[in-house]
Amino acid sequence: MQNHSNLNDIGVIGLGVMGKNLALNIADNQYRVSVFDLDPVKVNGVLQQEKQERVGQELRITGCANLSEMLASLTKPRILVLSVPAGAPVDGVCAALISAGIEADDIVIDTGNSLWTDTVEREQHYQGQFIFFSSAVSGGEVGARFGPSLMPSGDLGAWQHVAPIWKAIAAKVNPQTGLPIERFEPGNPVTEGEPCTTYIGPAGAGHYVKMVHNGIEYADMQLICEAYQLLHDGLGMSAAEVGEVFERWNQGSLNSYLMGISAEVLKQADPLTGKPLVEMILDKAGQKGTGLWTAVSSLQIGCPAPTIAEAVYARAVSTQKSLRVELSKKLAGPLSPAMDENQKANLIDALESALYCAKVCCYAQGFQLMAMTALEQKWQLDFAEIAKIWRAGCIIRATFLQSITQAYQADANLSCLLMADTFASTLSEKQTEWRIAVAAAIMQGIPVPCISSALAYYDSYRSETLPANLLQGQRDFFGAHTFERLDKPAGEKYHLDWSAQERVLIKL
Amino acid sequence: MQNHSNLNDIGVIGLGVMGKNLALNIADNQYRVSVFDLDPVKVNGVLQQEKQERVGQELRITGCANLSEMLASLTKPRILVLSVPAGAPVDGVCAALISAGIEADDIVIDTGNSLWTDTVEREQHYQGQFIFFSSAVSGGEVGARFGPSLMPSGDLGAWQHVAPIWKAIAAKVNPQTGLPIERFEPGNPVTEGEPCTTYIGPAGAGHYVKMVHNGIEYADMQLICEAYQLLHDGLGMSAAEVGEVFERWNQGSLNSYLMGISAEVLKQADPLTGKPLVEMILDKAGQKGTGLWTAVSSLQIGCPAPTIAEAVYARAVSTQKSLRVELSKKLAGPLSPAMDENQKANLIDALESALYCAKVCCYAQGFQLMAMTALEQKWQLDFAEIAKIWRAGCIIRATFLQSITQAYQADANLSCLLMADTFASTLSEKQTEWRIAVAAAIMQGIPVPCISSALAYYDSYRSETLPANLLQGQRDFFGAHTFERLDKPAGEKYHLDWSAQERVLIKL
Repeated sequence: MQNHSNLNDIGVIGLGVMGKNLALNIADNQYRVSVFDLDPVKVNGVLQQEKQERVGQELRITGCANLSEMLASLTKPRILVLSVPAGAPVDGVCAALISAGIEADDIVIDTGNSLWTDTVEREQHYQGQFIFFSSAVSGGEVGARFGPSLMPSGDLGAWQHVAPIWKAIAAKVNPQTGLPIERFEPGNPVTEGEPCTTYIGPAGAGHYVKMVHNGIEYADMQLICEAYQLLHDGLGMSAAEVGEVFERWNQGSLNSYLMGISAEVLKQADPLTGKPLVEMILDKAGQKGTGLWTAVSSLQIGCPAPTIAEAVYARAVSTQKSLRVELSKKLAGPLSPAMDENQKANLIDALESALYCAKVCCYAQGFQLMAMTALEQKWQLDFAEIAKIWRAGCIIRATFLQSITQAYQADANLSCLLMADTFASTLSEKQTEWRIAVAAAIMQGIPVPCISSALAYYDSYRSETLPANLLQGQRDFFGAHTFERLDKPAGEKYHLDWSAQERVLIKL
Repeated sequence: MQNHSNLNDIGVIGLGVMGKNLALNIADNQYRVSVFDLDPVKVNGVLQQEKQERVGQELRITGCANLSEMLASLTKPRILVLSVPAGAPVDGVCAALISAGIEADDIVIDTGNSLWTDTVEREQHYQGQFIFFSSAVSGGEVGARFGPSLMPSGDLGAWQHVAPIWKAIAAKVNPQTGLPIERFEPGNPVTEGEPCTTYIGPAGAGHYVKMVHNGIEYADMQLICEAYQLLHDGLGMSAAEVGEVFERWNQGSLNSYLMGISAEVLKQADPLTGKPLVEMILDKAGQKGTGLWTAVSSLQIGCPAPTIAEAVYARAVSTQKSLRVELSKKLAGPLSPAMDENQKANLIDALESALYCAKVCCYAQGFQLMAMTALEQKWQLDFAEIAKIWRAGCIIRATFLQSITQAYQADANLSCLLMADTFASTLSEKQTEWRIAVAAAIMQGIPVPCISSALAYYDSYRSETLPANLLQGQRDFFGAHTFERLDKPAGEKYHLDWSAQERVLIKL
């Protein structure tokens, strides 16, 4: 694999926080990297950082003044990593690469959060000019620097070239425990363990899977926030006290990266005022689109993903701060009954169960969504592998992804995560506490849109009969939309002539 | 307005249940109508029905063998009503009309459930060949026959020609009471009262408003279904008993068309088995797209409409019947405590309040969505007028639309329906019962995704501070996404260097 020419192994275009860190990560793993950004200050920044991090050692990053220089600096077929904002900038760089003389078997890897359908179109659009490949990246800036979760898809031949580098820079998991092997030291990458990258499928599949990852992430973050609000506003706990609770939960079945950092955020004092930092942060949530894309996709394909959608809406409500301030003065809430310490402790325990159950439902929604889309797109997604590469590096890494991995290893065609014995039995066991926590939040006036939506999802799937029979009756009444009957073969349509004096049943 | 030539006033193309009934409705109102369908049996069917309905009277409907014949039969500028399925068929008929010699100032009115953005494109696309106008229609087959709610939009000049016919055939409201004037007699249309049609705005606006109407309808139907499931499965009431409760509720603030027909459906015996019909209907809900379009639009524009989305997802879950049957055996539910008659009666009353409150929230979501889209599209929507034309004819007609009308008449720029005093005070008063009903459903294991989602929406808007502050902290931690501070001017971005030993606050 060692490259003995004086050419570099790979180029990175776009040196924002993700691009810069990917370049440093690749260099840590013995590859020689050319870097380019429209802003020369950023090019210089990467070179300086490498120098600082690797004093007295071989430097492996080369700055380029333009794309022609970058192309000239690389072995063929060239591998070019794009780390630019999703949308028009991607096509902008591709056009510039064509002008600069990129060749048909060169590989361009889009690592941004592109809309998956754009990726499908781009692969076709650039065919013959270069190979448009893509690899979604999760793990934020630290992940990019020391080991992200990577979701590559597109041309299989291109993947053969990219795979060694991708496996080197990806996060690693201890195959015995399923837990991340973490090391955050420049120049000393993790080289043992199972890498968190696998070929996902044809063009678009990787970005789709990453999109769903982000949808789950939205829901997971919102669930934790709801727990915080209940503990803080409902039980009157301080931010730091809630942080302690989260730290304790992080030792158990709720162990996850997001739970860990939430505890850290809550325990953080504000450098300016000394108050809890969280209480100085404006409560308006930003978003960049992948959560809403996931919800839109689920609606369009008819996959129930209500908890993910509720998380997107929760961010939208948060942005309407001035309306909330006004409404908080007009809309009454409940008079919450006081709770003694014992009741509080019980509620905290119930909430831990509720959070776990709701989290399982979010993942169930995300995996079912991927399965339905894979079926539509004729992708062969390997859900055990997908769960595996999410066990480290990415934002939603969590101990219980090991259980998801095992559930799909046991049955690759699992129709729904809730069907897996391990989850079915745990949720069955914890559902009473889940109900107690949601009911308590409701009686306290604390909004828990995601935790309660997940419970409604659970109860809906538990319902052999749903009131959609009445709904079909309504639709037949006002729109002659017809209905099927329980006592007749599937597909036979019936209509009742509701307007007639003597209502007769008509078989269509 | 009387047309003394031997030409007809208007043509109807597409004689499905909606087109046929619109033609009969127009003829009832003294206009002469040409009709065409690719299927001559349907043409004949309309002519036969007119003959049966108006024995010995002047007949006003003429069948056409093709579109050229139809064009030749009409006064100019011609008005052509399209009643064909949304999507490709609309463009198919338009192309055929061009071949048949339609002229530049002729008016084609699309009355289907077209996607509003298609309507915007079509108006431009057909410019110069004819005027592509649109008018969404609500009210199902009975509405189309005896008075629908009509939401026209597009070229204002075209509207001048269409308006007299549209006002004649629309449903009518008693201006004193705000209630529908109902009469379902062929040949004897309602001519007094305020017509349920108003010019909505530029191309696309009418279909957008109708789309949101349907989104609200999805939620409204689902809310009623959830109440039914709680009463039937939770309290053990028979379908007919629930029908009685709904009939009683329909006398009060919940009075609406949907409540009325739900009671009728529940009390209906199955002609085949004698059992309650609803219990013989397969509980898989169909859908045609407008509900999911509404949810998608709300996600894309960032308007919280969770209750509408939950209703769409509820239909999706219902279609997965075999998975539900399997899961119903694997997932445990609660052991519901027995209730005495007094407790049951209290829960029924609480549920009435819950249903009312949730319904207000659905409408608030729909109206806010229209407002946000109007702002984006630069439409001047008159929400008092929109509420007015929904008071009769359409599926979501309900007494409380009069209160919505009045709320917008009092303040045309109302930011949210919950800000209107009448709704703020009623919801504040009923919120305790709402909570009791939702908590009871949760403890009973009955899924109430929409009623509980609406409550979370209410509590979210009641929250001066939401836990989006923690969420912004999480985002800053893993992605350096920055946050704003409560004690600093809006727009100033801060980032904490979470990875540093000594965490410092950085102003960007």
